[in-house]
Amino acid sequence: MEKQNICVVGNGGWGTALISLLADLGHNTILWGIDPDYMADMRRTRRSPVFLPGIEIPENLALSSSLEECLPGRDMIILAVPTQFMRSVLEKMRDSLPADAPIVNVAKGIEMKTGMRCSEVIGDTLGPRDVASLSGPSHAEEVARRLPTTVVAASGNEALARRVQMTFMSERFRVYTSRDIIGVELGGALKNVIAVAAGACDGLKFGDNAKAALLTRGITEIARLGVAMGAKAATFFGLSGIGDLITTSYSPFGRNRRVGEQIGQGMTLDAILASSEQVAEGVWTSRAALAWAEKLNVDMPITREIVRVLFERRSPMQAVSELMLRNPKAEA
Amino acid sequence: MEKQNICVVGNGGWGTALISLLADLGHNTILWGIDPDYMADMRRTRRSPVFLPGIEIPENLALSSSLEECLPGRDMIILAVPTQFMRSVLEKMRDSLPADAPIVNVAKGIEMKTGMRCSEVIGDTLGPRDVASLSGPSHAEEVARRLPTTVVAASGNEALARRVQMTFMSERFRVYTSRDIIGVELGGALKNVIAVAAGACDGLKFGDNAKAALLTRGITEIARLGVAMGAKAATFFGLSGIGDLITTSYSPFGRNRRVGEQIGQGMTLDAILASSEQVAEGVWTSRAALAWAEKLNVDMPITREIVRVLFERRSPMQAVSELMLRNPKAEA
Repeated sequence: MEKQNICVVGNGGWGTALISLLADLGHNTILWGIDPDYMADMRRTRRSPVFLPGIEIPENLALSSSLEECLPGRDMIILAVPTQFMRSVLEKMRDSLPADAPIVNVAKGIEMKTGMRCSEVIGDTLGPRDVASLSGPSHAEEVARRLPTTVVAASGNEALARRVQMTFMSERFRVYTSRDIIGVELGGALKNVIAVAAGACDGLKFGDNAKAALLTRGITEIARLGVAMGAKAATFFGLSGIGDLITTSYSPFGRNRRVGEQIGQGMTLDAILASSEQVAEGVWTSRAALAWAEKLNVDMPITREIVRVLFERRSPMQAVSELMLRNPKAEA
Repeated sequence: MEKQNICVVGNGGWGTALISLLADLGHNTILWGIDPDYMADMRRTRRSPVFLPGIEIPENLALSSSLEECLPGRDMIILAVPTQFMRSVLEKMRDSLPADAPIVNVAKGIEMKTGMRCSEVIGDTLGPRDVASLSGPSHAEEVARRLPTTVVAASGNEALARRVQMTFMSERFRVYTSRDIIGVELGGALKNVIAVAAGACDGLKFGDNAKAALLTRGITEIARLGVAMGAKAATFFGLSGIGDLITTSYSPFGRNRRVGEQIGQGMTLDAILASSEQVAEGVWTSRAALAWAEKLNVDMPITREIVRVLFERRSPMQAVSELMLRNPKAEA
C-alpha cells in the first residue's frame, strides 16, 4: 500500500502504540499531545514514561503539541483521546483539519452528557465526514511491544474500512473489516459494564465456571440491546465484542475489572471512587445502558444487577442469587 | 419439581459432582463406578480422593459398582464416562436399562474410531431413545464446591431439555435449554482444539490481545464447520461454545491448554505424549476437525495451523505469521 501522511491525535498509551506501528510500516507519521514539555521530552528521550513505560519510540516518528502543525496536509487522522474529552479536542482541531481526511476513532466509550457513540460525537462536531472506528482486544502495552494483535476496522463506508485495514496490516497487527460501526462502538463501550461484573466474580472467588458464564450471558444481553439500537448481533460475538470483553475481564490491570473486584470484596463504590485516581468507565456506562434497555424494552439482567450493586447497595451475593434463580429460559 | 430416581453412570469428577448436586436437591440418587473397592471406600469415607480430592460426598447418595443394581427403575440416567469408553459402557448397560428412561450425556468429545458425537454413539448402541446433552463452562471441582455454574441442556426433544433443566436448577447451578444438540456437542468437542492453540499462545508469551483474538476467531471457524454439519451458529457463541472455550483456555489446569503451552515452549508432541499420563483430546480432535473441514469445504485456518504444528513440525512462530498475514478479510 502507498505510504501515507498520518497524524495520531492523543499521546496516551494507545495512540502512541498505534502511531509507532504506523512509523514501523514506513508511513510519514506525527503524534500530537497537549503538553509541550512532555512532547519535547519524548522527542529528546524517545520514551513515554507516563503512558508506555519501558518502550522505545521509533526514530522516524515526529512529535508535536501544535494542532496547526499536525493536521494540515494529512491523509488520515487517528483520534485517540478519551471519550469524555473528545468533543473539546475536536473543536480545537476543526480549523486545521484537511477537508477530505477521514477520521479513525480508536477510543471506546459513550459520551456521558449526550449518550452519543464516538463517531456520533465526531459527526456532531465536524459535520459530514468519512469516519471509521478501530476496536478489538488491544492492550496498548502489548501492541507497543509488537505482540500479535487482531482488531476490526468498522465504517459505513466500506472503502474506508478497507483502507484502514491496509494501512495498519502487518505480521503483528491483523485487521478485519466491518460495516457495522454501531455494533463495534457499542461493544467497545458496553463491554466495560460486564468487565465490572467479571471483577466482582473474581472478588467473590467464584471461579472459572461463573466468570465464563457471566461473559457469555453478558455479551448476549449486550447484543440484544445492540440489535435494538441498530447494530448486527454477529458483531458482538466478534473481536470488538466478546474478544475485547475476554481481554478486559482477564487482564489483572484493567480498571473496570479492578473496581468490580473491590466491590466483590465488600468495598462500597464511594470508598473505591475516593481511593482511585482514574474513573472506571463501566461504572457510569452501566446506568446509561440500563436506561437504554428500559427505553427500548430489552431485558438486561446482569446490567440491572450491576447497577443495583453499584448504586443501590445490593450485596453482590444477593445479586448472584437473583441471576441464578431467575425464570428458567432457553439459551437463544 | 417432583423428585426423581436418578443414576449417574461414571464416578469421575464430573459425574460425582453432578450426582452430588442432585442429592442436595432431594432426588433419590445412586452413583455407579466400575471399581468395587473404590466404591466401597467412597461409601465408607464419603470421599473420592482420586477424582474430587477434599470434597465431601452427600450422605444421601447411594454408591454401587453393579449396573444391575443401579439402572432398573430409574427415571433418568446420566452418562458421565469418557467419550472413548462410552460405547463399551453402553453395551454393558443395555440389558439393565429401563425402556423409557432418557439418557443425559455429560461427556464432551468425538468417538475417534467412528467420528460420532456422544448422542450418536448412544443412538448407535441403544437404538431410538430420548437423549439430551448437558454442556457448558463447568470444571467439576468448582461444581463440587457449589460455586455458581451455568450450563445448557440440549435435546431435539424440547420437553426433555426442559425436564433436565428443572431437574438440576438451583441457586448454584443454572440451566438453559437448547434444541441444538448437534451444536452443543460439537462445541464441547471442538473447543479443545482451540484450547491447545490458546495454550501455545501462553507458551509463546504472546499476551492477552493475541489470546482473546485466537478464542474469538477460533470459535468463529468452529461455528462455520458446525453450521456445515447441521448446527446453529448461535449455539457456538453460547455457554457450550465460547463459554466453555473461555474456561478451558484460562484455567491453568486444563490438559489441552497445557499441551499447547508445552508446544509453545518448544517441546515436540512426541516428547509431551511420552511424559504425560492423560491424553489431551484436542490433539486428536484437531485432525478429525480438519478432515471434516476439508470434506465440507470449510475454511479453518487456526485448526489447520494447529495440525501442522502438532503433526508436521511447523514452528509455532511460523504458524502465527501465517495466520496474521493471510489475505485481509471482512470479520463476518
